[in-house]
Amino acid sequence: MLRRVLIANRGEIALRVLRACRELGIETVAVYSQADADALHVQLAGQAVCIGPARAADSYLNQDALLTVAKATGCDGVHPGYGFLSENADFADACAAAGLTFIGPSGDAIRKAGSKSAARDLMRAAGVPVTPGSDGPVASVEEALTAAESVGYPVLLKASAGGGGRGIRRCDRPEDLSAAFAEAKAEAQACFGNDEMYLEKLVLRPRHIEFQVLADRYGNVIHLGDRDCSVQRRNQKLIEEAPARCLTPELRERMGAAAVKAAKAVGYENAGTVEFLLDPDREHFYFMEMNTRIQVEHGVTELVTGVDLVRQQLRIASGLALRLRQEDVTLQGHAIECRINAEDPVQGFRPCPGRVDFLHFPGGPGVRVDSCLYSGCELSPYYDSMAAKILAYAPTRMETIRRMRRCLEEFTLEGFPTNAELSYQILYHPEFILGECTTAFLDEHLSELLEFSRKLSESGVDA
Amino acid sequence: MLRRVLIANRGEIALRVLRACRELGIETVAVYSQADADALHVQLAGQAVCIGPARAADSYLNQDALLTVAKATGCDGVHPGYGFLSENADFADACAAAGLTFIGPSGDAIRKAGSKSAARDLMRAAGVPVTPGSDGPVASVEEALTAAESVGYPVLLKASAGGGGRGIRRCDRPEDLSAAFAEAKAEAQACFGNDEMYLEKLVLRPRHIEFQVLADRYGNVIHLGDRDCSVQRRNQKLIEEAPARCLTPELRERMGAAAVKAAKAVGYENAGTVEFLLDPDREHFYFMEMNTRIQVEHGVTELVTGVDLVRQQLRIASGLALRLRQEDVTLQGHAIECRINAEDPVQGFRPCPGRVDFLHFPGGPGVRVDSCLYSGCELSPYYDSMAAKILAYAPTRMETIRRMRRCLEEFTLEGFPTNAELSYQILYHPEFILGECTTAFLDEHLSELLEFSRKLSESGVDA
Repeated sequence: MLRRVLIANRGEIALRVLRACRELGIETVAVYSQADADALHVQLAGQAVCIGPARAADSYLNQDALLTVAKATGCDGVHPGYGFLSENADFADACAAAGLTFIGPSGDAIRKAGSKSAARDLMRAAGVPVTPGSDGPVASVEEALTAAESVGYPVLLKASAGGGGRGIRRCDRPEDLSAAFAEAKAEAQACFGNDEMYLEKLVLRPRHIEFQVLADRYGNVIHLGDRDCSVQRRNQKLIEEAPARCLTPELRERMGAAAVKAAKAVGYENAGTVEFLLDPDREHFYFMEMNTRIQVEHGVTELVTGVDLVRQQLRIASGLALRLRQEDVTLQGHAIECRINAEDPVQGFRPCPGRVDFLHFPGGPGVRVDSCLYSGCELSPYYDSMAAKILAYAPTRMETIRRMRRCLEEFTLEGFPTNAELSYQILYHPEFILGECTTAFLDEHLSELLEFSRKLSESGVDA
Repeated sequence: MLRRVLIANRGEIALRVLRACRELGIETVAVYSQADADALHVQLAGQAVCIGPARAADSYLNQDALLTVAKATGCDGVHPGYGFLSENADFADACAAAGLTFIGPSGDAIRKAGSKSAARDLMRAAGVPVTPGSDGPVASVEEALTAAESVGYPVLLKASAGGGGRGIRRCDRPEDLSAAFAEAKAEAQACFGNDEMYLEKLVLRPRHIEFQVLADRYGNVIHLGDRDCSVQRRNQKLIEEAPARCLTPELRERMGAAAVKAAKAVGYENAGTVEFLLDPDREHFYFMEMNTRIQVEHGVTELVTGVDLVRQQLRIASGLALRLRQEDVTLQGHAIECRINAEDPVQGFRPCPGRVDFLHFPGGPGVRVDSCLYSGCELSPYYDSMAAKILAYAPTRMETIRRMRRCLEEFTLEGFPTNAELSYQILYHPEFILGECTTAFLDEHLSELLEFSRKLSESGVDA
């Protein structure tokens, strides 16, 4: 078993990793930027070392500093959390080269999953459905037109080396293609130094369904069921749940099997997530991407499976074989997570970090809170604006929705605005209650939801 | 279904009831004493009404005030919580007479369970094991001697009308009986206006094992497994867990069946607890008493059964039949609760309420916190000193112990001393780890545990 782990992250995920280490008797070394000196993960860790100024590039992304601290404090493992260096293949390799266990997949697996077009080819070869599209790159507008004709409009032109939404253009008609091709190519060249393009069919109004997988180094790969993360805004997930209401047991089994294939196709080890788009008729699903790290929303899977995923990460990285077999995994009850962000939905989701003057988290049965906030702390403007994850769990989906509403009624944070009221309104929206949200839901209903909140607050009705 | 419930209590149990009502769409009316104006249950309730001065006799025990508020605010139900009026048969009757649903058993059932000697006779008649003892009351020292001879020493002389530990004397030898008999009789007369005595065998070094039961008005009675509450000091439970490690499945089934019999014997309805003493050889168990209310420690049962007991209370009181059958109840995983009290173990557990200057509760997977504290609140000196219940849940008992240790390491309360450090030490004690604690455990090991804490704190070792 690992003896001492460097937690190469901050915020709630650093605390999450610290908790799992504690429970396994693994010592912890926290790192922090100058902005995070008072952070909870720093106060609770066995040791904590400052690794630089607030700017992430100078601290949490500073590979040399992290490796130096890990070696100097006698760590034998490094947990990257999510974000920052968690999907950086070079960092995984550098850890290995320094004799440190990177708690995640190999650099090679990260690279295979990280390259969009290569992953697409790998998945197709492994029998994992991908969206219809060009057979490899398209070298010219003419090739793009031919490919688009065969899969049908609308289509997406995408940079092979793409990421972060750049180098992508949507085309609804043949006449859009020419300009879009030139633009996307130029953007790809500028962003990635590589202007290779490919084309795929755009799935309209899909659901975002993802599967949690666990893989050990002995070839055992299992999935832990699905999460529906369709309530999102510009790819930022807001509310996640497990299991997805829209999946039949048969479809769940097929998608789960595809997720396992996907993990095997990249030679995966440790915890990962295979993201799919599910089309509106729920007959076709398509591989979207594989996230080679623990996800923000892993907790909903923990609640419905009873499996502690970070504990599993630490066990797998320690070289232990998975004890769980696929047939041991059962989904019980329903879990929902609301991400509480320091942002103001009525001001275009402007981040608004600040000091927490007063804080009360919900408690009681079926409630889990993952947060590094405390009364009096500062939420730093330097990093992402997530302040807390509130999770509710109950035997049925409707009981869980009601429980989550109760949680948001109880939750009190004074000091800066959050999205909690918006999430609360979503929990009352018919489309959400029926489990019919697609990734278009939030964009389509945002103004209506915000307008209702505004009127409610003006009316003085205590809803 | 009940529409609006008066919560005739305060503190964490008022909050617990409020949460369950919210989740069922039942409106809530809180009551509070002048000392509790800023309490969380008051802030979160639909309505809140002040019912008098701080002293419980003037507020939370004031039946007229409670009934007046319930009627005036249009309530159709009253939840008594635990303590205060929760086991007051007259209050249950008064609610019924006022057309209010008392969320608990009938006054008649409370009376039957509440009278110690009558309950003993009832249970014996129903085939529930009771400790060997006199066959009914003992009228003289001679009768007591005969009875003691037949069951064997040590014995307890007990007032038939007893309660709260009064009117009880332990006798280890025949020559103790004469003086004890006179003393106990006089005390019983003074306390209860009734000096009838009976005698029972004293079970030495027993375990305190209790069974949660649920009963509806249609004659359905089930049990939800057991809790081991042996870690206690002067009948104050400190750490509770479910299920008890010391029970074999066969013994669990026998004791559970006895608990169901006990509930049926008093015509029970709603949630209740049947407490047993289990002797050291774990072959004999004896009915101790039946608690006709929700217990402080109900949460550990909720965690291992997945059943929300307060929700069940509200459903049963609304006249709904139990949906759960005995065969639906399965115990999964292990749960432990630590009661955090504002008291100083090194000063003889002196209560030391005060202002909460800083508060951080543990979070993350498998952790539940029930508390009405918040940063800046006052823990009132007028009521009991319980500040929070911290519950941990994991697949195995040892994982749960480790998780609870982690929770107590994280838990931070500045403002007054608590028993958290003592509980933390108990979680490392071999007897606790092996699941071998009897009700004598804490008395026997208290000085050793406190001494270790003191040395640890002096040594500066960061354990």
